Order: sequence, then structure tokens, then C-alpha cells
Amino acid sequence: MTAALLEQYRERIRTELDRVVDFWLKYSHDEEHGGFFNCLGKDGKVYDELKYVWLQGRQVWMYSRLYRTMERFHKPEILEAAKSGAAFLQKFARVQASSGPGKCAFCLTRDGRVVKVQRTIFSECFYVIAMDELSRITQDKDMQADAESMMDQLIFWVQTDSSGLGRPQLPGDPPVNSMAVPMMLLCLVDQLTEGRTDVAEKYKDLSGWCVERILQHIQRDGKAILENVTLNGKELPGCQGRLQNPGHALEAGWFLLQYAMTKGDMQLQKTAVDKFMEIPFHTGWDKQHGGLFYFLDVDGHCPTQLEWNMKLWWPHCEALIAYLMAYSHIREPVLLDRFKQIYDYTFRHFSDEEHGEWFGYLSRQGEVVLDFKGGPFKGFFHVPRCLYMCEKLLDGLLEKQDS
Amino acid sequence: MTAALLEQYRERIRTELDRVVDFWLKYSHDEEHGGFFNCLGKDGKVYDELKYVWLQGRQVWMYSRLYRTMERFHKPEILEAAKSGAAFLQKFARVQASSGPGKCAFCLTRDGRVVKVQRTIFSECFYVIAMDELSRITQDKDMQADAESMMDQLIFWVQTDSSGLGRPQLPGDPPVNSMAVPMMLLCLVDQLTEGRTDVAEKYKDLSGWCVERILQHIQRDGKAILENVTLNGKELPGCQGRLQNPGHALEAGWFLLQYAMTKGDMQLQKTAVDKFMEIPFHTGWDKQHGGLFYFLDVDGHCPTQLEWNMKLWWPHCEALIAYLMAYSHIREPVLLDRFKQIYDYTFRHFSDEEHGEWFGYLSRQGEVVLDFKGGPFKGFFHVPRCLYMCEKLLDGLLEKQDS
Repeated sequence: MTAALLEQYRERIRTELDRVVDFWLKYSHDEEHGGFFNCLGKDGKVYDELKYVWLQGRQVWMYSRLYRTMERFHKPEILEAAKSGAAFLQKFARVQASSGPGKCAFCLTRDGRVVKVQRTIFSECFYVIAMDELSRITQDKDMQADAESMMDQLIFWVQTDSSGLGRPQLPGDPPVNSMAVPMMLLCLVDQLTEGRTDVAEKYKDLSGWCVERILQHIQRDGKAILENVTLNGKELPGCQGRLQNPGHALEAGWFLLQYAMTKGDMQLQKTAVDKFMEIPFHTGWDKQHGGLFYFLDVDGHCPTQLEWNMKLWWPHCEALIAYLMAYSHIREPVLLDRFKQIYDYTFRHFSDEEHGEWFGYLSRQGEVVLDFKGGPFKGFFHVPRCLYMCEKLLDGLLEKQDS
Repeated sequence: MTAALLEQYRERIRTELDRVVDFWLKYSHDEEHGGFFNCLGKDGKVYDELKYVWLQGRQVWMYSRLYRTMERFHKPEILEAAKSGAAFLQKFARVQASSGPGKCAFCLTRDGRVVKVQRTIFSECFYVIAMDELSRITQDKDMQADAESMMDQLIFWVQTDSSGLGRPQLPGDPPVNSMAVPMMLLCLVDQLTEGRTDVAEKYKDLSGWCVERILQHIQRDGKAILENVTLNGKELPGCQGRLQNPGHALEAGWFLLQYAMTKGDMQLQKTAVDKFMEIPFHTGWDKQHGGLFYFLDVDGHCPTQLEWNMKLWWPHCEALIAYLMAYSHIREPVLLDRFKQIYDYTFRHFSDEEHGEWFGYLSRQGEVVLDFKGGPFKGFFHVPRCLYMCEKLLDGLLEKQDS
């Protein structure tokens, strides 16, 4: 029975991944200036030509990962698209002028002029995963070195001196342990170290540091995951301190679980599932209308984010990966039940049968309220990464089932 | 018939203004550190202690204006509250360190430490109106001079050199005529020049410049008001260029109408009503569920702002002022019909019968989705300013009716 169900999931997920890849191959490539259009309407038409560096980097990474690790995507057009995106980033993403060395833009014009620079580390992070993944295919040593030197810059900003990011230290705003930062660095370490024992050795301490920083977000006697804590793992005052982002916690959950499995750390495996999956799933799931809330306040106050009760595509993508990964390691039926519950909601509400790809933004009630397929924060990343990882996990599960 | 209706409106609006003032007097005062709590739950409880400088300045202004111009608010506790807020701002709002002279913070801790500085002019603008209005009561010449010197700094940033705001000029992001800037300066001129012919003379050219800049937002052969245009009044590419904010256009409408009436400029009066009221009202009103959309794209694309289809309190406040002001000058019944339509929606959906004050954020369907009364962008300003101005306009209308 379970095998048949898993096979059914795999079939749907495989078909969906093909459709999603086709959508971006067809509509997002800028043949004139290189790189990718990010803002695609529901039917794929470009409604804005701005190029967002997070999304450019993620698309290069995703194309390269699919090309390298899934046979049916080992196609010249996918590799060429990844190369075009990487060339665009290498040519235009670095900010000249006053911002510190290595700073990347957040947003560029179609022809590569800088529109906006964020004072955070994320553009640079997605630059790293793009260059590293592509260089694994092309064996381009310079590109790999480019990724590693950016990584060293990131570590310096996060662990030693953040002044190069351009954000002044203000007396009422002490540095905070925001969950995104250690999560992102752990993801980068995972990317850079695959199959490279020397690099793994180099970043061994860093991954331990990341895990420790992520675990500091377990608060309220182990009953809540909070998005922002102090640098020594205490709760912060006010809305910032009480903020919960269930999808983000679930993403941290599968990052931690993946790390725990490579280390054979059973205690961390349990923490990943019990704390970073079960807590956000239970607090985040909307019992009335289904789906995961975007933001919640741990004390039940109304969050100040206007979109708090909307259902966004990416938390559901992360939840699917988290529970399927948990099930594939632990084989508790309840974990598969959770996957099923999230899967049913997700495929019923986000996937667009008519034009392909997924809608990204639903009302609390589950209606599509923003109907574009690509926008400033939605690119070729969360949907295909989720489908790719779920397909791989299902391959593994069905293989073991067969044998 | 009309008189009875207007009397009915005035009665409700007067009662509502009393309740709103009571709410903030009761819940928002920080007796320990001075200034005001901004984040108040539906029942008035403080859910975050951060103090937002826009809202501190606006609250000082509103208390002072009520004290100075409405007899029933000429009460010591209101004046004392205004003074406490102004003292807090003078002591803590100015940013020391690298940001240019005169830069104010955006957000402070309860005890006045800087949390965030925005690279825009608005904190400083609300500082100006606060100090100017209060100094008209106290006859504090230093405070008046403080307001004027900040105004001179603002004019320098906007018209001569914006580098003191700290935002670097980026090649892909040329300076833009964003409607908020000339609107805000026109509002400041109106504030500073009331009853002062010498100051009016000083800012005569500036107000003409503001009006010209606002009128540049009439685009598409006079059929649309766009929120952002080039510095010479052309349409910008992409989402930024196509953005419409109906409530903001309606606010500009009454600013322009007020200016036109002081100048006796009948052409500008007509433009204010036909372009800045009728166009945003017709494009912005949700025919299906009622209320004004927050953002729209002039070509009908989906806006990228997640809150685009929500119904916010302040656009409705501005629309009420706009149409009642237009009716009071022009006496076309259709203008009163518009007021009635907006009034019915607004009082039915935003006003909280149980705890007083108004909710700020509704779903497209009109349900309350954020239930706090005060938050990072909602303070003691749009609601009481609307009620105050409407009461004054109704007083004027009913007085003329009587005579």
C-alpha cells in the first residue's frame, strides 16, 4: 500500500518538475543581455525586466544541480542557461564604489546596472552556491576559487567584522542571532564540501558553530522556535523576539536533519524532527482553512507583518522536504501522514494546471491573490528544489522498498 | 434633507473623534520615559515598546492642533502630552554620528536609543510639523526656530544635494519623482505659513515647485495618476512606473484643492477633483467587495506588493477628507454621494464599537486581519486628522446652510 502511494507521489512530482523546468526554460531567458528575467506573469510573460541577484544565483544553482545529478536534465540548453546566468553575475553583480570588497547588488537592471544593494549577506550567499555548483560541471577552477573567496568574505562579515556590509551599529539595535544567517552558512558549507574532504575539514568548526546558533532558537522551555534571539541565545523583547516563521523553522529542520545524518548524530536527528518540524507544523498549520501561516507571534498577539496570515508557496515546499526526509530516515508512519497533509494542500492550491508552475501567494482562505509565477522574491528555486529533493527521496524510499 | 444628513454625519464624527482621542490619552502615554507607546493592541494594551519617530511627531502635531483649534480639546492633559512627546523627540530623535546634520531616527527604544534610521526625509518632516504646531501654542521661539532649521535642511536635501540622507546614487536607480516628497513638502509649507505672511513669502516658490511636481504624476493622457515618475515627468519602466496608490492620490487631491482655494486657482481646483479624486476613486474602488485597494498596476498586472488588495484605514480617511472638502467648495451632489459611499464602508468596517479607535487592516473581503489599533505605521494621526477635518468642514457647511 505505502509503495503504491509513494509511487503515485513520485509520478506526480516528476511530471511537475518537468513542467516547472520547461516553464523557466521557455520564458525566463534573456537572449540579449544574458541572465534571467525574474518577473513572469501567470502565463510566463515578462512584466518587469529587473534582475534580482538572489534569484539569478539560485537559478544558476538549480539548473546546474539538475544538469549534474538528474539524467533527464543533462541537456545542453540547461548547461548553457546556467553558464549565461553565471557570466551575467560575474560581470555585473559585484558592487564597485564605497561598499566593502565582495559586496553584491540585490537588484540590477536588465543590462546589469546596479539598482539596489542590501546590507545583508544573502546576495553573496546565492552567488557562492551558483559558482560552486556550476564549477563542479565545468571544472572551472577560477570559478570555484571565486566561490571560495566569496565564502571567506562571508565568514569574515558574520564572525569577525560586519562593518563591510554597510549597516551602522546603532545603540538601540544590538547584533541579533537571526536564524537565516546560520542556516544559510550551513547550507553553503554543505554545498562547498560535497565530495571534498579537504574543504570539509576547513569548514568543520563553522558547521558546528552554525548548528549551535540554530539550536539557540529553541525557546520557551523547548516549546517554541523563535526567529530572532540574542547572540547568546536569549529571547529578545517585543515583536522581534516573539516572531515565529513556521516555514523557515521547517527549512532549518531539514538542514539540521541532513547534517545530523552525515554525522550519525541521533540526538540531533531527534531535535531536528521534534523541535524544528513538529513544533512549527503544529503551531503553524491553520486548523480552519489549512496551509501554513507565514508569521505568528508566540504569545498570540497579532503580528505586524501585513502578510502574516497569507499562505506562501515556499514554506509548503520546505515542509514537504522536511517531512519526506524525516520519514525516509525514521520511517514513522505519522511523518508520512504529515507529508500527505501538506502535499494535498500544496498541490491543490499552488500548482497551476493551466499555464504550469506554481502560484506563490494565497489568502488565508486559499485563493490566489498574487497571480504571477516569478517576482522579486519568487524565482526558479523553492519549487524545483522541493520537487527535485522529493523525487530523490522517493527514489531512495522505493529502491529500499524493492530490495 | 441634506442639512439633516450633514448634521447626522457631524454627530457621529464628533463622537468618534472624542472616542479616538480618549483611547490614545488613556493607553499611549509613557509616564516613565516620556513620548508615546505606538504599538497598542485592540484593547489598548502595549504589545511592543518601540517608539516610531513618524508617529511620535504626528501625535505631538495632532494633540497640539486639537488643543489650539477645537475648544473641547483645549485641556491641560492634551497640552502636557504634546509637550512630553516634543521633549522626547528633541532629546532623542536626532541621530549623532556619521549621518548628515539634522538626520532623525526612524525608530527608538522606549528610553530613546536609536534602533533604525531610514534614508528618506519623512522622520524629519513629522519632526517639523510637531515642533511648529506646538510652538504656536507655547510661543516657544526656539522650538519654532528648530522646526524652521529642519525645514531648511529638508529643502536642501530635496532640491540641492541628497547625499546627507546616506543613500548612495546607483547607476541603475536614477533619482525619481516619488509623489510623497512634493506632497509632504507642500504639507509642511501649509503648516509653517499659516498666519505668517513673511514665512509664506519665503516659501512661495517652493509651494509652486511642489504643485508642479505633483501634477507631473498625471500620466497616460490624463487618465491615470502614477505614484512614481521621472524627474521631468515621464513614465518610468516596469512595476515602479506602473504603480498606483489610490489613497495617496486622493490625499494629494485634497492637498492640491486646499492650495488651489487659497490661491483662488479655479483651474487647479478642477484638476484636483477631476484627476486626483475622481480617477483614483474610480480605478481604486473595489466593485465587488467595496473599499479602496491599496495598490494597483495601471496596466492591470498584479502588483508585487503582497498587501495590494487589502483595505487599509488611511486611504479611506484621505478619501473622506478629499470628497467632503470638494463638496464644501463645489457643492456638486455627486461629490457628497462619493463621501457617503466611502463613509458607509469606512464606519461599517474600520471603527471598533467594542474597544474604540479603528482597525487598520482588512482583507479584500472586509474582515479585520490585523487587529491592533497602533503599530509601526498606524498611530494617532490619520483617523483623528480625518475626523477633525471632516468635523470642521461639516461645521462650515452647516453654518452656511443656516445663514
